[in-house]
Amino acid sequence: IRAAGASVARLCCRRMARPDVTLQDIRTAQARIGEHVWRTPVLESTWLNEACGARLYFKCENLQHTGAFKARGATNAIFARSSAQLRSGVVTHSSGNHGAAVARAAQLRGVPARVVMPHNSSAAKLSAVRAYGGEITLCAPTLAAREAAAAQIVAATHAVFIHPYDDAEVIAGQGTVALEFLEQVPPLQWLLCPIGGGGLASGIAIAVHGLRPDVRVVAVEPATADDAYRSFESGTLAAPVPTSTVADGLRGALSERTFTIIRQHLHAIVTVDEQAIVQAMRELWRTLRIIIEPSAAVPYAAIAQRKLAVGDAHVGIVLTGGNVDIDALPW
Amino acid sequence: IRAAGASVARLCCRRMARPDVTLQDIRTAQARIGEHVWRTPVLESTWLNEACGARLYFKCENLQHTGAFKARGATNAIFARSSAQLRSGVVTHSSGNHGAAVARAAQLRGVPARVVMPHNSSAAKLSAVRAYGGEITLCAPTLAAREAAAAQIVAATHAVFIHPYDDAEVIAGQGTVALEFLEQVPPLQWLLCPIGGGGLASGIAIAVHGLRPDVRVVAVEPATADDAYRSFESGTLAAPVPTSTVADGLRGALSERTFTIIRQHLHAIVTVDEQAIVQAMRELWRTLRIIIEPSAAVPYAAIAQRKLAVGDAHVGIVLTGGNVDIDALPW
Repeated sequence: IRAAGASVARLCCRRMARPDVTLQDIRTAQARIGEHVWRTPVLESTWLNEACGARLYFKCENLQHTGAFKARGATNAIFARSSAQLRSGVVTHSSGNHGAAVARAAQLRGVPARVVMPHNSSAAKLSAVRAYGGEITLCAPTLAAREAAAAQIVAATHAVFIHPYDDAEVIAGQGTVALEFLEQVPPLQWLLCPIGGGGLASGIAIAVHGLRPDVRVVAVEPATADDAYRSFESGTLAAPVPTSTVADGLRGALSERTFTIIRQHLHAIVTVDEQAIVQAMRELWRTLRIIIEPSAAVPYAAIAQRKLAVGDAHVGIVLTGGNVDIDALPW
Repeated sequence: IRAAGASVARLCCRRMARPDVTLQDIRTAQARIGEHVWRTPVLESTWLNEACGARLYFKCENLQHTGAFKARGATNAIFARSSAQLRSGVVTHSSGNHGAAVARAAQLRGVPARVVMPHNSSAAKLSAVRAYGGEITLCAPTLAAREAAAAQIVAATHAVFIHPYDDAEVIAGQGTVALEFLEQVPPLQWLLCPIGGGGLASGIAIAVHGLRPDVRVVAVEPATADDAYRSFESGTLAAPVPTSTVADGLRGALSERTFTIIRQHLHAIVTVDEQAIVQAMRELWRTLRIIIEPSAAVPYAAIAQRKLAVGDAHVGIVLTGGNVDIDALPW
């Protein structure tokens, strides 16, 4: 227990060592990870445009390696380290897409990855991590248990801890989505993404602020997991509440770091209810003919529910992932 | 009945008026339809490559307007006509994707489209045609009934008949898939597509023969709808047999025109059984995270079943469409 406690402190120090991320960091990340991630396509739908009146562009990170944008941040964080630093491999905790992304990036670097996962993780997610050569440590399904187990592994192995979002290199990697998106769709006026822990929203907000400050970055959150919304509105980092939102990738809570970035650069945070998320997911499957997970449908749900006055603007939406059990759909 | 009979003869004459299609026709089609169709993305999967040993590239025509490559041929056929020729609109018969493609292209040209559809067409397919402004005429679910109904409309309205595949401009339009694919993936060594009536296979075979005769074009057909396979093997156009293959887009039979082209330019035709098609469809949903219909899974089924000795070659596969009822999946 002492070892674990000491390591938690170490992890926190590491997290706070570098307080911010710049546009240049995101450009560096883009060059670093370029050959290891896909430049994902942007899709449009005449139907959806006519239905909502705006011009929508969907950036398909569900078609990214590992089926999620998480490959960007994890790859950047791991490739930013020297071989000496990675001698003992990497460790993370994740119930979802970040775990597979870390396992894959470690495999590309040829170092071991240890992933702490709650024992109730889906078989699909466990097997994705294993398929990339990740070594799984099961733990109780609480954040405290995950953090303690990861800290224990760090203490025992000296592996490098790769936080799912509270990490400058992870944030810089996620920000590469926005660099690509702005290159692919120059007329963009709005850019929408889902928000959970805030890594993606932070990276996007920094990239857009640096390159195209006229573009409004909006994060969308499930109403039943609205800690980011409450924090943004109140100006004080709000405590997360337990949630079982169908958007399982968005159950995480902001950190001080991501909250600071988001307060500075985000135009707004809006929330959508569970039914709207499932409806949006189904509508995007049907019209775009791609497989997205519930979390990825959250920003479009805000458009469908007319939660944002986008008018006839050019609106970019990041479809964050496509890891869903096709035999257990939420409709 | 006399009117219908006369019109059938007229349709046949028109079909035979122009016996072949050239690479130049396909280039003309590409320029003509460029602004009306998507340049669809090409996806790859590390998983699938490792599983089969080859390097696979998937051209996503399921992400095309109307959810199928059919938008290419129909748009080319309709935009190749003058406004005077289109004065009375267009007519076609189709139980599937070609009907929606014709309705959309006619809408883009501002002329009426009449689509003859079997009365047992799915609600999704009927509503897709209607959503593009197409006027539906229901008929009995036989080819004879469809042809008679279409001929009657031609006789009554003087609309231009757009055959689903036995039409030089339709074939040239479908061939644009191959032009794009070869531009997007220069190292391609094999190019696989499904075959039903043979319009797509013909267009691809002509384009590849003209541009890159070293690339092997292979058509894949459901074993329960193997008229193209039998025709190709015997050298004589075989009679189609009634089929209820899950690959509903491939129930059509070759015409003299498509058979002539295919005999000249195709490397091989192989067949796959129903179970392999469903398995392949499910595997592509899972690994590529896109929605494809059963017909689109047919070429990959041939790879998964090791029906072709592709070794470690660069293999292009056209995913032809993604119009499937997501509440009635075949697994």
